[in-house]
Amino acid sequence: MTTVDLNSDLGEGFGRWTLGDDDALLEVVTSANVACGYHASDASIMRRVCDAAVPRGVAIGAQVGYRDLPGFGRRFVDVEPQALTDDVIYQVGALDGFARVAGSRVRYVKPHGALYNAIVHHEEQAAAVVAAVVAYDPALPVLGLPGSAWLRLAAEAGLTCVPEAFADRAYTPEGTLVDRRRPGAVLHDAGVVAQRCVDLATTGRITDVEGGEITVEAASICVHGDTPGAVDLARRVRDALAGAGVALAPFAGDAPSA
Amino acid sequence: MTTVDLNSDLGEGFGRWTLGDDDALLEVVTSANVACGYHASDASIMRRVCDAAVPRGVAIGAQVGYRDLPGFGRRFVDVEPQALTDDVIYQVGALDGFARVAGSRVRYVKPHGALYNAIVHHEEQAAAVVAAVVAYDPALPVLGLPGSAWLRLAAEAGLTCVPEAFADRAYTPEGTLVDRRRPGAVLHDAGVVAQRCVDLATTGRITDVEGGEITVEAASICVHGDTPGAVDLARRVRDALAGAGVALAPFAGDAPSA
Amino acid sequence: MTTVDLNSDLGEGFGRWTLGDDDALLEVVTSANVACGYHASDASIMRRVCDAAVPRGVAIGAQVGYRDLPGFGRRFVDVEPQALTDDVIYQVGALDGFARVAGSRVRYVKPHGALYNAIVHHEEQAAAVVAAVVAYDPALPVLGLPGSAWLRLAAEAGLTCVPEAFADRAYTPEGTLVDRRRPGAVLHDAGVVAQRCVDLATTGRITDVEGGEITVEAASICVHGDTPGAVDLARRVRDALAGAGVALAPFAGDAPSA
Amino acid sequence: MTTVDLNSDLGEGFGRWTLGDDDALLEVVTSANVACGYHASDASIMRRVCDAAVPRGVAIGAQVGYRDLPGFGRRFVDVEPQALTDDVIYQVGALDGFARVAGSRVRYVKPHGALYNAIVHHEEQAAAVVAAVVAYDPALPVLGLPGSAWLRLAAEAGLTCVPEAFADRAYTPEGTLVDRRRPGAVLHDAGVVAQRCVDLATTGRITDVEGGEITVEAASICVHGDTPGAVDLARRVRDALAGAGVALAPFAGDAPSA
Repeated sequence: MTTVDLNSDLGEGFGRWTLGDDDALLEVVTSANVACGYHASDASIMRRVCDAAVPRGVAIGAQVGYRDLPGFGRRFVDVEPQALTDDVIYQVGALDGFARVAGSRVRYVKPHGALYNAIVHHEEQAAAVVAAVVAYDPALPVLGLPGSAWLRLAAEAGLTCVPEAFADRAYTPEGTLVDRRRPGAVLHDAGVVAQRCVDLATTGRITDVEGGEITVEAASICVHGDTPGAVDLARRVRDALAGAGVALAPFAGDAPSA
Repeated sequence: MTTVDLNSDLGEGFGRWTLGDDDALLEVVTSANVACGYHASDASIMRRVCDAAVPRGVAIGAQVGYRDLPGFGRRFVDVEPQALTDDVIYQVGALDGFARVAGSRVRYVKPHGALYNAIVHHEEQAAAVVAAVVAYDPALPVLGLPGSAWLRLAAEAGLTCVPEAFADRAYTPEGTLVDRRRPGAVLHDAGVVAQRCVDLATTGRITDVEGGEITVEAASICVHGDTPGAVDLARRVRDALAGAGVALAPFAGDAPSA
Repeated sequence: MTTVDLNSDLGEGFGRWTLGDDDALLEVVTSANVACGYHASDASIMRRVCDAAVPRGVAIGAQVGYRDLPGFGRRFVDVEPQALTDDVIYQVGALDGFARVAGSRVRYVKPHGALYNAIVHHEEQAAAVVAAVVAYDPALPVLGLPGSAWLRLAAEAGLTCVPEAFADRAYTPEGTLVDRRRPGAVLHDAGVVAQRCVDLATTGRITDVEGGEITVEAASICVHGDTPGAVDLARRVRDALAGAGVALAPFAGDAPSA
Repeated sequence: MTTVDLNSDLGEGFGRWTLGDDDALLEVVTSANVACGYHASDASIMRRVCDAAVPRGVAIGAQVGYRDLPGFGRRFVDVEPQALTDDVIYQVGALDGFARVAGSRVRYVKPHGALYNAIVHHEEQAAAVVAAVVAYDPALPVLGLPGSAWLRLAAEAGLTCVPEAFADRAYTPEGTLVDRRRPGAVLHDAGVVAQRCVDLATTGRITDVEGGEITVEAASICVHGDTPGAVDLARRVRDALAGAGVALAPFAGDAPSA
């Protein structure tokens, strides 16, 4: 039976402020990219998400970012590689505490926002994040964009690399994401998005932005959680996958005991 | 052979700012209370302290505090118990990451500053910190003031409680600390401080502020690291203990493998 | 003609996170208590609120709080009085910059959250906030709870004191607020709240929680902006006041030129 | 009589942490670039520096930076121009509050660290800082590097531009700073530095790194305050200027009344 993972960003509130519907998304996704307090989240939010994820069988991943709460981690910070390595270890360790308390462990690492985008190309920062994962636990898989420096360097370092696709993004004929600023870059039709996900999970063949057919490798599909209608769209994706006979399961496998 | 532990606060710089001389203190103490980023420290400082502590056989303890960098954790914050529990887990987890990377583990927990003072009496906050340690790892010893609510509740919860004495503080006839604002509350004569530490380690009998003799129980002695002459004083204490045939060793015992 | 002021907390988002509907509230209230970046808000939010408030004739007040973004300023911080004075000056100055850029000035000061509650009784902190206003501009009015240490000390220091009432809170026979934790402390019926505001503005006679009649002095009525239905309730209050022939105007008077 | 200004970064501690010797520097310099809480400083430090600067006739300048306390503003942040404009207004306004309380005003603006370096070339960020000054007070002079986008755009916007030179930096034959990473980029000989400053103030002719002679325009000379021996070096510069008959005075002119 074909299996795929659905991942989404969770735990992205901060203190008094909420963002997205964590509880609803935990009923949909199989992997939760949990913010670790650098770009969003705080200790109580992290605990609640971990406590809710574990009994549902949702894998907990560390969504690591730049230390930039005011900017939500969405602006590039030219942080020194060693400092970035340390910052990533700090975040993974903090989240791992809550994951252990909840009876599980951090199961993978996925960078967030501007860091995610930077390490597609920025070799030094990509290597710094890789070094953090290697130092913390070389058995931790990493999630990222196919073709990125991040996944390439992670593979060279012996890490398990998990390529992801985006449920609601258009792809170029070369298989890269269409720039968000271009028209048509983001897909809004729920039916189209859901079918796209079924295609990604079953054949890996999807239609690119120019109408051709391309192959996109994806062991996990990212659905967004912080936009209006996000939860409904995620549910639609889940239902479509189920209808197509695709099983949903964390790419990180069964949860270890704490 | 009589054995005692020397503990000190380390890793209390922040970014560009330094405080104390961590490297020098790591040659003196046997237990390092490492700040975890809430009242002081950052990821790079935590990594450096852990990396330097482990090869020296210095035990790494989590020095947890209120989330208050501008106030250095020195002002009481009326944080809700559940939030405090979560904040402590966050800090211990983050430090544990660096301790593991350095080949060890967090070996004990010691609250800092205003939190240390608050949980001498504040039952709810004391219980909240106890709950964090119990949740994170009930095998972790806790370090604190004899007679405090913190140690009492920790003991009731089954935690290993380690009472500490202060090298440079005067004691009342009742065995409590003389209020810092009273004259004579802080001892400045290095010879007196060193002899006091030998007495604490060997007989537990010291002279109180009124000239009588009292018994103070201390498995660990706290020396300060952030005042002028602090390192010299700490070295003097260490030498005096060695001269008196007192062995220095972490109260937490030998380091586990990571 | 009877005149009253409606004040509400605005600008309480932070970075990516929003809270309340600032634009809608600016169509209803006459005084905006703008958060200054210590418990909520940031530079861009402050600019937007100021730019929107000035053309609408809404007076800009500095909603000053403890430096505690993670706690939204809702937990007491035992900050030293001098540090608190400095923190208040910092916040008022920062907001005044945006008010000036928008063509106006900060017109009054109202403490937020735990600071608001603390200085009802905490003499040292109350005096510290008073000292900040006196130092910054002794012509600035201050808004607060009748009977509080805050307003008493402000009056003694020669500041203009503006007592406020709460649209949706029950009062004791002594004219103080019913503790939020008691049943009936918060009024939820929009009709009752609106009539309460008309009574406050016209006769100052309202029904207390035990059914008696008391006098409450209020030059300004506080309506909340961050709860579900808040904007609708505020509009209902405004309409009821207009229907009763009560004029709405900032208690701080006409705006000065920048 | 020839006149020059000496500027230095002040107020760069944070909470418990100190940096440099503000009091000593205030006896030497004529313009104080005061950190505003984004990359360093806090409300109490800002008040103390302002209170000490005004009676000494030292002009208060706003040393604005990226919002990055952990990185001390030394790493580039790709912040959106509008957000940067707002951040600069916030900082200038906050400092202006303390300057007014001390009986003066913010008299000029000088960016710090990575922002200083970025806006030598980064047009959008340079324009954003210019826009902030124009919005806040177009009469405020700006201090910066000759030839920078920052000063060029500021001049185009009608701001008064003040070029500065660096007391301890080597210059290329083209009159730009030698890259810090190259040998010889920083001058360490106090006698050489002092004579360099006399030359800058009197003839504007200095020796470049290759031994030729160049002209450097400087209405203000920057001396550093946070390195070992910084205060002694600054005193040496001041004495050499006095010995050469050069008067020291703030470039911003006499202080206005508050």
